[in-house]
Amino acid sequence: MSELIRFGISLDKKLLESFDKHIRLKGYPTRSKAVSDLIRGELVKKEWVGGSEVAGSITMVYDHHKRDLVNTLTSIQHDFHNLIVSSQHVHLDHDNCLEIVIAKGKAKMLSELGDKLNAVKGVKHVSLSMTTTGKNV
Amino acid sequence: MSELIRFGISLDKKLLESFDKHIRLKGYPTRSKAVSDLIRGELVKKEWVGGSEVAGSITMVYDHHKRDLVNTLTSIQHDFHNLIVSSQHVHLDHDNCLEIVIAKGKAKMLSELGDKLNAVKGVKHVSLSMTTTGKNV
Amino acid sequence: MSELIRFGISLDKKLLESFDKHIRLKGYPTRSKAVSDLIRGELVKKEWVGGSEVAGSITMVYDHHKRDLVNTLTSIQHDFHNLIVSSQHVHLDHDNCLEIVIAKGKAKMLSELGDKLNAVKGVKHVSLSMTTTGKNV
Amino acid sequence: MSELIRFGISLDKKLLESFDKHIRLKGYPTRSKAVSDLIRGELVKKEWVGGSEVAGSITMVYDHHKRDLVNTLTSIQHDFHNLIVSSQHVHLDHDNCLEIVIAKGKAKMLSELGDKLNAVKGVKHVSLSMTTTGKNV
Repeated sequence: MSELIRFGISLDKKLLESFDKHIRLKGYPTRSKAVSDLIRGELVKKEWVGGSEVAGSITMVYDHHKRDLVNTLTSIQHDFHNLIVSSQHVHLDHDNCLEIVIAKGKAKMLSELGDKLNAVKGVKHVSLSMTTTGKNV
Repeated sequence: MSELIRFGISLDKKLLESFDKHIRLKGYPTRSKAVSDLIRGELVKKEWVGGSEVAGSITMVYDHHKRDLVNTLTSIQHDFHNLIVSSQHVHLDHDNCLEIVIAKGKAKMLSELGDKLNAVKGVKHVSLSMTTTGKNV
Repeated sequence: MSELIRFGISLDKKLLESFDKHIRLKGYPTRSKAVSDLIRGELVKKEWVGGSEVAGSITMVYDHHKRDLVNTLTSIQHDFHNLIVSSQHVHLDHDNCLEIVIAKGKAKMLSELGDKLNAVKGVKHVSLSMTTTGKNV
Repeated sequence: MSELIRFGISLDKKLLESFDKHIRLKGYPTRSKAVSDLIRGELVKKEWVGGSEVAGSITMVYDHHKRDLVNTLTSIQHDFHNLIVSSQHVHLDHDNCLEIVIAKGKAKMLSELGDKLNAVKGVKHVSLSMTTTGKNV
């Protein structure tokens, strides 16, 4: 488990009041948790532009009626099997599917996998969610 | 299945050349697919600021050793059970978990669910992936 | 001038080490300045989605050879003269101009001004920079 | 002046209807202008991650009462004088100033200039607007 360090910071009074109001509305238990999250958000963005190992998810929406679509998506995922941890499928309605692929590896590879899936005919929307393996943040 | 409409557009020559090069690198089969995706990207953003029903996923990374963390996350998800379609859990390492919740409903509610999960002590990172139900795009 | 408040926060040790490294690279003089900026960034985003008065700049790149372009841009700016503080013009090369409009007012109005300028034929790119009047942050 | 190329694309009927409605609301004169802008938006993002020469503006808000602030900002700008095209200053109120610096060069250098200005004590908010020299789009 992690070790906590306590230290002091100085903030402009008006800024601190605005912040306290903001985090109360967001439901934060303490200033420390809110500040930690801002810091982590910043560092996770950095992991994604640097060469760190990252975790992320790729959310796709597609019309499964398109010919060969499901086969093509499966085949692309197999090309990236070292990267992919697991996937999850949801039937949105009669035509539309939502599929989420969880992946772990170099940011560049995750982006490439997202691009490849996105380029397939019948895929309507792809969104890459950038998160962290949690190791350094 | 969907019906296709064909129409003409005019582009600056140099712009078209840059675009063709760009979509070749991305692996797009046709200009039509690439233009469709740009349009869908724009419309999905709009669904999220308007009052439309949307689909999305919330990716969380947390340290499962924190006391009461898993109970709190489960209890929040139950408060939003009408919104949540399914969830998926991955063990990143000895300490860190990655969990993805797929949800469908008003954008405002999905954001609120994301904020609630984010405010819990021990949750390191939350990322909301905004996609579409596919109905209107 | 502003009043400073000093208070303590607790951070995970590893997170604090990563943060210290990050802000040293960015050239920050103190943790307090770095944390203030993260907080301000968060609050400025909120000013833009809430109904607050904001400040911002609209950067346009256009080809001034297009017929009536400059007249149309000027005429749109006059329709929003209550919003616009000043503007600045740069000749990028023989064809391309860069113009920046500084504006202050409701976020919704600044976005609308940006959209109107963007829709004009010959305007190649418009980017809206969201900042603050500095009053509450 | 630029040369226009006309070509055909195929879109899903429902998607085209949504798009036509969207661009009418945005005030676009033609589908061609709207599609051009989506393409340019995509390519400008790419110029910023690739090594291309870009144009951009850095918007700062600061409290000019802070000791040495204006001197420090001026001195940083001089270090980057090869990059900076011009700057513009606005008095927001008794305390707050808004200053915009227009720059042209490598994306990496513009980001570095933004970071340097941001790290100065008394600077409340810095926002980097990424646009294009217009040469290739």
